[in-house]
Amino acid sequence: MKTGQYVYPFAEGDKSMKSLLGGKGANLAEMARIGLPVPPGFIITTEACNQYLSKSEGLWPELKAEILDHLQQLEHEVGRGFGSERPLLISVRSGAVISMPGMMDTILNLGLNPVTVEHLAGEVGNRRFALDCYRRFIQMFADVVLQVGNHLFENILTEARQRKKVRTDAELDEADLDKITTDFLDLVRKETGKDFPEDPQEQLFLAIAAVFDSWNTNRAVVYRKANRIPDTLGTAVNVQTMVFGNLSEDSGTGVAFTRNPSTGEAGLYGEYLLNAQGEDVVAGIRTPHPISELKDTMPEVYEQFLQTCNKLEEHYRDMQDIEFTIEKGNLYMLQTRTGKRTAPAAVCIAVDMVKEGLISKKEALQRIEPEQLEQLLHRRIDPEAKDNYVARGLPASPGAASGKVVFDSDKAKEMEQNGEQVLLVRPETTPDDIHGIIAAQGILTSRGGMTSHAAVVARGMGKPCVSGCEELQINMSKGFFTIKGEEYKEGVVISIDGTTGRVFIGEVPMIEPEFTAEFRELISWADEVRRLKVRANADTPDDAHRAIELGAQGIGLCRTEHMFMAAERLPVVQKMILASDLSEREAALSELLPMQQGDFEGIFKEMAGFPVTIRLLDPPLHEFLPDREELLLEVDKLRREDSDPGLLREKEMLLHKVQSLSEFNPMLGHRGCRLGLVYPEIYKMQVKAIFLAILKLLEEGLPEEKLQPEIMIPLVGHREEMVRMKQLVEKTAEEIFNDKRKKISYLVGTMIELPRACLIADQLAEVASFFSFGTNDLTQTTLGYSRDDSESKFLPYYLQSKILLSNPFAEIDREGVGKLVEIAIEKGRSVRSNLKLGICGEHGGNPASIEFFNLVGLDYISCSPYRLPIARLAAAKAALQG
Amino acid sequence: MKTGQYVYPFAEGDKSMKSLLGGKGANLAEMARIGLPVPPGFIITTEACNQYLSKSEGLWPELKAEILDHLQQLEHEVGRGFGSERPLLISVRSGAVISMPGMMDTILNLGLNPVTVEHLAGEVGNRRFALDCYRRFIQMFADVVLQVGNHLFENILTEARQRKKVRTDAELDEADLDKITTDFLDLVRKETGKDFPEDPQEQLFLAIAAVFDSWNTNRAVVYRKANRIPDTLGTAVNVQTMVFGNLSEDSGTGVAFTRNPSTGEAGLYGEYLLNAQGEDVVAGIRTPHPISELKDTMPEVYEQFLQTCNKLEEHYRDMQDIEFTIEKGNLYMLQTRTGKRTAPAAVCIAVDMVKEGLISKKEALQRIEPEQLEQLLHRRIDPEAKDNYVARGLPASPGAASGKVVFDSDKAKEMEQNGEQVLLVRPETTPDDIHGIIAAQGILTSRGGMTSHAAVVARGMGKPCVSGCEELQINMSKGFFTIKGEEYKEGVVISIDGTTGRVFIGEVPMIEPEFTAEFRELISWADEVRRLKVRANADTPDDAHRAIELGAQGIGLCRTEHMFMAAERLPVVQKMILASDLSEREAALSELLPMQQGDFEGIFKEMAGFPVTIRLLDPPLHEFLPDREELLLEVDKLRREDSDPGLLREKEMLLHKVQSLSEFNPMLGHRGCRLGLVYPEIYKMQVKAIFLAILKLLEEGLPEEKLQPEIMIPLVGHREEMVRMKQLVEKTAEEIFNDKRKKISYLVGTMIELPRACLIADQLAEVASFFSFGTNDLTQTTLGYSRDDSESKFLPYYLQSKILLSNPFAEIDREGVGKLVEIAIEKGRSVRSNLKLGICGEHGGNPASIEFFNLVGLDYISCSPYRLPIARLAAAKAALQG
Repeated sequence: MKTGQYVYPFAEGDKSMKSLLGGKGANLAEMARIGLPVPPGFIITTEACNQYLSKSEGLWPELKAEILDHLQQLEHEVGRGFGSERPLLISVRSGAVISMPGMMDTILNLGLNPVTVEHLAGEVGNRRFALDCYRRFIQMFADVVLQVGNHLFENILTEARQRKKVRTDAELDEADLDKITTDFLDLVRKETGKDFPEDPQEQLFLAIAAVFDSWNTNRAVVYRKANRIPDTLGTAVNVQTMVFGNLSEDSGTGVAFTRNPSTGEAGLYGEYLLNAQGEDVVAGIRTPHPISELKDTMPEVYEQFLQTCNKLEEHYRDMQDIEFTIEKGNLYMLQTRTGKRTAPAAVCIAVDMVKEGLISKKEALQRIEPEQLEQLLHRRIDPEAKDNYVARGLPASPGAASGKVVFDSDKAKEMEQNGEQVLLVRPETTPDDIHGIIAAQGILTSRGGMTSHAAVVARGMGKPCVSGCEELQINMSKGFFTIKGEEYKEGVVISIDGTTGRVFIGEVPMIEPEFTAEFRELISWADEVRRLKVRANADTPDDAHRAIELGAQGIGLCRTEHMFMAAERLPVVQKMILASDLSEREAALSELLPMQQGDFEGIFKEMAGFPVTIRLLDPPLHEFLPDREELLLEVDKLRREDSDPGLLREKEMLLHKVQSLSEFNPMLGHRGCRLGLVYPEIYKMQVKAIFLAILKLLEEGLPEEKLQPEIMIPLVGHREEMVRMKQLVEKTAEEIFNDKRKKISYLVGTMIELPRACLIADQLAEVASFFSFGTNDLTQTTLGYSRDDSESKFLPYYLQSKILLSNPFAEIDREGVGKLVEIAIEKGRSVRSNLKLGICGEHGGNPASIEFFNLVGLDYISCSPYRLPIARLAAAKAALQG
Repeated sequence: MKTGQYVYPFAEGDKSMKSLLGGKGANLAEMARIGLPVPPGFIITTEACNQYLSKSEGLWPELKAEILDHLQQLEHEVGRGFGSERPLLISVRSGAVISMPGMMDTILNLGLNPVTVEHLAGEVGNRRFALDCYRRFIQMFADVVLQVGNHLFENILTEARQRKKVRTDAELDEADLDKITTDFLDLVRKETGKDFPEDPQEQLFLAIAAVFDSWNTNRAVVYRKANRIPDTLGTAVNVQTMVFGNLSEDSGTGVAFTRNPSTGEAGLYGEYLLNAQGEDVVAGIRTPHPISELKDTMPEVYEQFLQTCNKLEEHYRDMQDIEFTIEKGNLYMLQTRTGKRTAPAAVCIAVDMVKEGLISKKEALQRIEPEQLEQLLHRRIDPEAKDNYVARGLPASPGAASGKVVFDSDKAKEMEQNGEQVLLVRPETTPDDIHGIIAAQGILTSRGGMTSHAAVVARGMGKPCVSGCEELQINMSKGFFTIKGEEYKEGVVISIDGTTGRVFIGEVPMIEPEFTAEFRELISWADEVRRLKVRANADTPDDAHRAIELGAQGIGLCRTEHMFMAAERLPVVQKMILASDLSEREAALSELLPMQQGDFEGIFKEMAGFPVTIRLLDPPLHEFLPDREELLLEVDKLRREDSDPGLLREKEMLLHKVQSLSEFNPMLGHRGCRLGLVYPEIYKMQVKAIFLAILKLLEEGLPEEKLQPEIMIPLVGHREEMVRMKQLVEKTAEEIFNDKRKKISYLVGTMIELPRACLIADQLAEVASFFSFGTNDLTQTTLGYSRDDSESKFLPYYLQSKILLSNPFAEIDREGVGKLVEIAIEKGRSVRSNLKLGICGEHGGNPASIEFFNLVGLDYISCSPYRLPIARLAAAKAALQG
């Protein structure tokens, strides 16, 4: 950029100058530079815009002079002149660095006035055409520059058509247009109190200032804030000679992609219309032709266009989205930019281009947004389907499903066994519903958040779930539910979309997941470049198997409580909780021991050769007991009915226990290692089960180095907790080793999920061999947000009104939670340089968060199996950026 | 300390050498140094102890030689010898730097054996006496050095008494004692497999080693850990010539305080026994005489003792706790140390001593533990009363009360109006119980924690409350409650102690608070030295009045929600919450406006000249609604009974609202500024009420500078929350100022109660003029402890088993919460150097926490009015330390 130069002719720019010339301008210059047919023009820079906005005294004289200077050159180049007999007509377009809505878009045909319109008519020999251009110009200019509402012009047009009894503007004749332009000019005079500007220079300066001003419209400001676009970028203005696709039958206009943006298939994809301007293609009154037909209609133009597209793709090394116009058989390029594409297309194009030698593997990886892959991994509602959902809950587990509504888990199982597809619909689910969840295609609950039982279990199973759908009112006893006053009987077919939280009545077209060869190939390239290891959160041998298939390098979080939830185990777990003394509790625990041992055997077998991090029991015990309110009503009923006193006493005792275990804030209650300290026998049993499983596998011949247990103590906040829990693990292990005369090495570490743990991480690292950041809970405590509550209460409002720019449970809050993670890493490594660091919160599957975790130096991330491909790609991108 | 010197004769020590000689030894040396009659002796240093413990090879030759060297000097000095005809008998006592239980205490009469016992008998002309000394020596030595259980010796003594059919050992004669000593020696041989050591040197070395070893007994280690006494201090050993108070009728022993340790009254206070040894005074078989009687019995000795006591008090400049022995008319001092005292005595003595010119005001302040003052401020259970409580809950609000049990608030009010004293007993209280709480002497609940409704309201009113007393089972409908299976009818008189959480059946003797002139004087001295300002947490004009009386320099926390809880307001608040649209809600708010305005007028009037920090509405809205479970049962009942459908519909709607507002973790839910953002109309009303109140007072003539409102936004975690809430306050204020054509200056700040707020405090300080640390909530989130849950669940276990050394809700957790406070201060002041910093959590009234707050540089602390004197004293002590 030359100092003080605010205007660049296309010939002086190129595609590297986006920040100065805006995206559109830089690409127009680039196309001109490489010899493509671009109607000549010039660009007023973003610097000029910033100057203009900071001065707030309008366009200043030097700038005007510079513009007029380039205008003169342009007139000279094209042999036309503003207001002359060969009138110069131009388009004025905004061109921000990053394209954004809310900016002034386009003014066409600038330069027309009562005099030049007649010159134009004479020149092209078509007065109707000239008047139509004039009419369009007045309307656009008045709307965007003079702020005269567009609907007022549309009213005049509508009246004209009605008078004439025709359907389209094309059917209006020269006389009609004469009257319309006069009416338009009158309207402007009436609305603004001034005449429509006739001087083309004045028109041009007004249009440029309007583009600059549009940078600060409310909509543009809000959009920038939401998308974190700096306010200082400014916008450029593109001034370009008009070409007319609507001049004749050998004229036309069209848009095309260099490859199919839906599928990624190679080959031109687009459409065109003859004798039309750009807006006609969009308006949808006439049906455009597929681009391939141009080959027959105008073979030479088609061939030229094809060559141009190839040249552009090779030049830009990416699929292009192109606008073109044909004026009397001459092809003009009006825009090129990188084309938007669907996820399958993105993957296909990236892989194809690597194979074509156009781009490198690293470039291919950088071109895919990991989040896009989500749609390739789950069944989803066809985005083309009508979006007529009847209610919306929380997107608790991704994927889509249809099925008959069932309220009862036993019935769900029964119907599923009869070959029916069912959706389990409940106020909330409890561990008692586990067989119903297994039987169902998906789960819909009217209460509960993203961490409710239904949500957690569904995510673990990879089943779609919508939770906390508060519009849904279920009347279980009478067998129906209502949404917005409408009643639906049990058995009706509904569909849910767990990715967005939408609920539909009836079946909805679905798209199956597309796990293509290209996809697999791309992800394997990601593995070549990433630094972060990627593990899975998996609680069962099945989960572990799936995780390995999806590329996991270990288990980062095995939640032992999920093993407690299985239908046949729950009664034993409840017996353990309700035990009136230690010996009763230990009896129940010894029933659980072989069950947990069996799970661990299966998991270690699947994960042979990879580390497995097992978290000891974490949730508060009341989560395993029946719902308090239901029990309350039941006891009340038993009391009233003078029923079996034994049963009443039993239920009363159960209620008393449930009440005494219930907590005001279970999230901050008696859970995690607090359980392990108060009831050491529970943790002892779990540790026993782990080591017995390992020794059994050793006996069966699995080599020792294939078994890498990492025992994780949850919710540690004080050094002493970690010390005592480590002692418990070591003592229990020692006993088993002595008993079986066989040892194995293992790690004991902690989950970092409390702010205090981060602040004293140096003390913890003295005891713990690894840290795994539990960023879900760390987010809850650091921000003081209950995930279950906030996602259905204030959080949506916060996001919608931009108090928060992203959901901190989806994308890690770098300033708060992230800061604590950094503190913990620094303190932890200061006392133990080889401290193993990972993350097992749901942020482990979120690309923006993975970028952060790579940056701060974690060793691995762990996420749910279904997000593994996303995490692998995101980790690769993070490595490429870092 | 001379290098390599491990033994100090009394003559070489003084009171400054406590760390080397231990407390007891240093004081013995000091007394000897200033010419008081102390039986000669020497001290083996703490250094010797540390050497001994690190070497673990017993007493080493050089040490033994040094001891023997001093022993020889001692023999020379007193003209006696180990094993000689004039046998040297000594006592061996431990002497830690800080006195602590678990250490070996005392061995008397060391040096006796079958030979010397006869020499002694001959010398004093009393063989029974000599045998009695020998018997005692064997028993003590065997117990503490040889680890032969004391009960085995007691068995022998008991048998002897039974044989002789006498009640006391004094009634046993010489022959009995001959047999007993023989039996004792046999017992030692049987238990240890060895003869009892006869060589006095061997006895001495064994005793010294036993004292050293006792440093590492489990009990001593645990005590040090709990009291944060370094393990490296070690203990000294005191070796001192025996004197015998039990030698004759002109011998005796006693203990005395130089002033009354209960009341602080000047003058000797103590007791003595003639012909007795120290342990006889303690044993309680003979009743000791008041010290004053010694004046008549042995006038010269008394006069000498009185002079000695005066000398000691002047010398030590504090009240002394003294042990003495008289041997044949000669007075010997055996110990002096600073005397323990009750809180009233501490205050009285400190103030008296300042007036006597003995100590300075600053010294007086440093001598009082602020925590002690608690007992001066509240009615309390007489500590002399038998501690026969039947149950224990949480100490939710200090003070004690008795009254008839009432379950129902209406009835409580009615009985109170009939002049009866009642205690309100409920499972939990709700805002509906407010009139019952007002009517009651105190409140007892079976559920709920330290921040339950009952606890918070009671603390605010200064009424005793015990909450979460889970042993208590209330059967409201049948009118009784049970504790440990015992049934008590409504109407029974009980007593509660809100300071300790104890519950008593019946009336218990109480002590009224003692707010003496000395107390007031002492606190006024505190105000002269403290740097921290002290404010009160006060929600009503009455609170504010009390706060001013107790020395508040402003209100640090005015919780506007407590204004919502008043009986006549609650229905309006509920109307506001249940409003189906904005206009209904605004109608209810406009009813509340004049009520809140009235409160603010009263508060600002009371606080004229002082700042008043008003926190806008903080708790989640469901706290103002009826109990969910009660409502559930009620709706269930209405449904069953087919009652008035209008009523049913109303209750169903209410239940639906309660359910939709209820939260899994209300602590982390929709509260604080999250309410203000989603329902700005609520905050607007509150801000309006504040400024209307102020303008009214201005009109009434209160000068502007006397009105210092500080509006506090609660639960801010993101800058944007603070920005928007400040805008709301400013806009609302501006409207009122414009309307009334009058302005006033005010501050807008935030409560820092989330970890995230601390981590981005620099961003917040750009917007907020002050920070007030809400350390209650900050502790909950930083540690992940729900206060309501943890205090009744795992926290007692954590404290009892020393996982935590103090309750983080009582004393601030410096490593975690404190670290965040420091981060916030540093970040906040980095962008706003004059940022006003305070604390309004309950730690504001806790001395250890106040020390911290002074250290990190807060401007003020705020606490409940009743803790103001404690806080003022603690702030002074902190300033003196810092």
